[in-house]
Amino acid sequence: MTLHPSVAAVRLPVRRTLAALGGPATVAVACSGGADSLALASAAVFEGHKLGLRVVGVTVDHGLQPGSADQADRVVSQLAAMGVDETLTARVEVDAVSGLGPEAAAREARYAVLEQVAAHLSAPLVLLGHTLDDQAETVLLGLTRGSGGRSLQGMRPSFGVFARPLLGVRRADTVTACLVEGLEAWDDPHNSDPGYTRVRVRDRVLPVLESELGPGIAEALARTADQLREDTALLDALAADVLADAHRDGGLDVTVLAAAPPSLRHRAVHRAALDAGSPPSELTRDHVLGVDELLVGWRGQKWIDLPGPLRALRRDGLLVIEAP
Amino acid sequence: MTLHPSVAAVRLPVRRTLAALGGPATVAVACSGGADSLALASAAVFEGHKLGLRVVGVTVDHGLQPGSADQADRVVSQLAAMGVDETLTARVEVDAVSGLGPEAAAREARYAVLEQVAAHLSAPLVLLGHTLDDQAETVLLGLTRGSGGRSLQGMRPSFGVFARPLLGVRRADTVTACLVEGLEAWDDPHNSDPGYTRVRVRDRVLPVLESELGPGIAEALARTADQLREDTALLDALAADVLADAHRDGGLDVTVLAAAPPSLRHRAVHRAALDAGSPPSELTRDHVLGVDELLVGWRGQKWIDLPGPLRALRRDGLLVIEAP
Repeated sequence: MTLHPSVAAVRLPVRRTLAALGGPATVAVACSGGADSLALASAAVFEGHKLGLRVVGVTVDHGLQPGSADQADRVVSQLAAMGVDETLTARVEVDAVSGLGPEAAAREARYAVLEQVAAHLSAPLVLLGHTLDDQAETVLLGLTRGSGGRSLQGMRPSFGVFARPLLGVRRADTVTACLVEGLEAWDDPHNSDPGYTRVRVRDRVLPVLESELGPGIAEALARTADQLREDTALLDALAADVLADAHRDGGLDVTVLAAAPPSLRHRAVHRAALDAGSPPSELTRDHVLGVDELLVGWRGQKWIDLPGPLRALRRDGLLVIEAP
Repeated sequence: MTLHPSVAAVRLPVRRTLAALGGPATVAVACSGGADSLALASAAVFEGHKLGLRVVGVTVDHGLQPGSADQADRVVSQLAAMGVDETLTARVEVDAVSGLGPEAAAREARYAVLEQVAAHLSAPLVLLGHTLDDQAETVLLGLTRGSGGRSLQGMRPSFGVFARPLLGVRRADTVTACLVEGLEAWDDPHNSDPGYTRVRVRDRVLPVLESELGPGIAEALARTADQLREDTALLDALAADVLADAHRDGGLDVTVLAAAPPSLRHRAVHRAALDAGSPPSELTRDHVLGVDELLVGWRGQKWIDLPGPLRALRRDGLLVIEAP
């Protein structure tokens, strides 16, 4: 029997990710019961056991919907039937986290509990099931923020203990892999609620882009995210160097900042405003460009108002950002 | 009589652009007869004459459609009625330019003839009528290429003798400005031909993005382009420095390249492949990442095939890109 191409497409990057561990270990797989994470878990069991790894399936119960505990039990049964070595259900309480919407707060809580689970299991790796489609959707959502490369860099393939081996795999392949393997995927009702911007991007925006601009747009968005992530990492590091050089007497040396190229100057100003307490969601490019005028287009302006409220002003050759 | 907000929206950036000339001069305005360039020409006459500038209206006849000469004559009459100091019709022959599609070839030919006109008039400035909507469309078209920040940086506000003062003005404002000023705009039939990707972006993609993701998406795309243009300028310059440092004995020093951060290494490899003659339209990120493996993940690979056809290989501590 030959391996179905969709099953192979899911297994290959999982094998690479697990092989990079370089030896026996425990690996956790986060599984919601959706097609992507079910296909991921199945691939992790298959590839992990070949590599002599212990594979633990973890499901997170947010308790946000009636019946969520039943759904968690169902996923645990599916994981057990797949042959994972252990199953865990992590229950999280989602508190209002300051400055985060309900979706982001739930995500933060989920990652926090998965980190605890990894520590408890001494697992160096937690696999997450995000696909190339999720990545393309994330880039399109970022477009609406209009804050340059930072907002378009999508999700990282790995961070901390987490890895996303399916970030180059189409969601359709995870759905097909589940069908081929007889895994019954659960459709989260949130995933078809057009009240969520992400759902509208998935169901209405990406299909129009693919039909009008040609197939391959999701892949193009994902490639763009990869490159912008590299660029942003370097530019942020260079801007941090500029800021460190500019710090003096409780302010920032105007001469040092003004000598930096626009890309780094604007990043340094943005970072300095955030460090002074300006809320990220309110600080816009226009604010940054206003402060930049104090540096490179100064005609005696008194100050620039920034969200906080804060004021940016020049004083004795320094850029100072302070409460009014 | 108060100034209509759309007329003001068009005039303000034109005034800023013309004032930056800092004294008497001749300014050319490229005008197709469409709403954007008619509104631009009218604003240039109004603001230019206040500043003591001589304003010349230029229309370009591509000779691509039957009746194009009549259309050029019509635009010349409109420009004369507006009060421009002189009108010119530039006729261009569009030859097949190697590696360019028909739209790009026509654009190149148009810019070349406008440069000649500027030289003939001793005009330091040629105004082009591209709007914020054109910029947003350019960014979306770039998304389909999936080549990172470079493909998303949109149009430059100025280059050479050219300036695009309306790059922050919505197309709707130019249409309204024409209505208010009694200027009858011409609808280029190309602008409603869905055979053009740009037309589909304008008529089908952007409206869906605005309705599903919220108004302001065009502005967000334009802001993103501004930031990515800054970033790309710096990253390209830094990558050129890396390349210059790496050049040695007819190849590129692997140690120098490998020491550069991924963002610059990938740009340097991309540039080196283009310099070796690889066609830009065929050279992909996967090619670049393949060559990058020769630098930072070398396990004795023989060579990487590149479009050209070319081969990238390691030889005596050098990266060499050559014909097979």
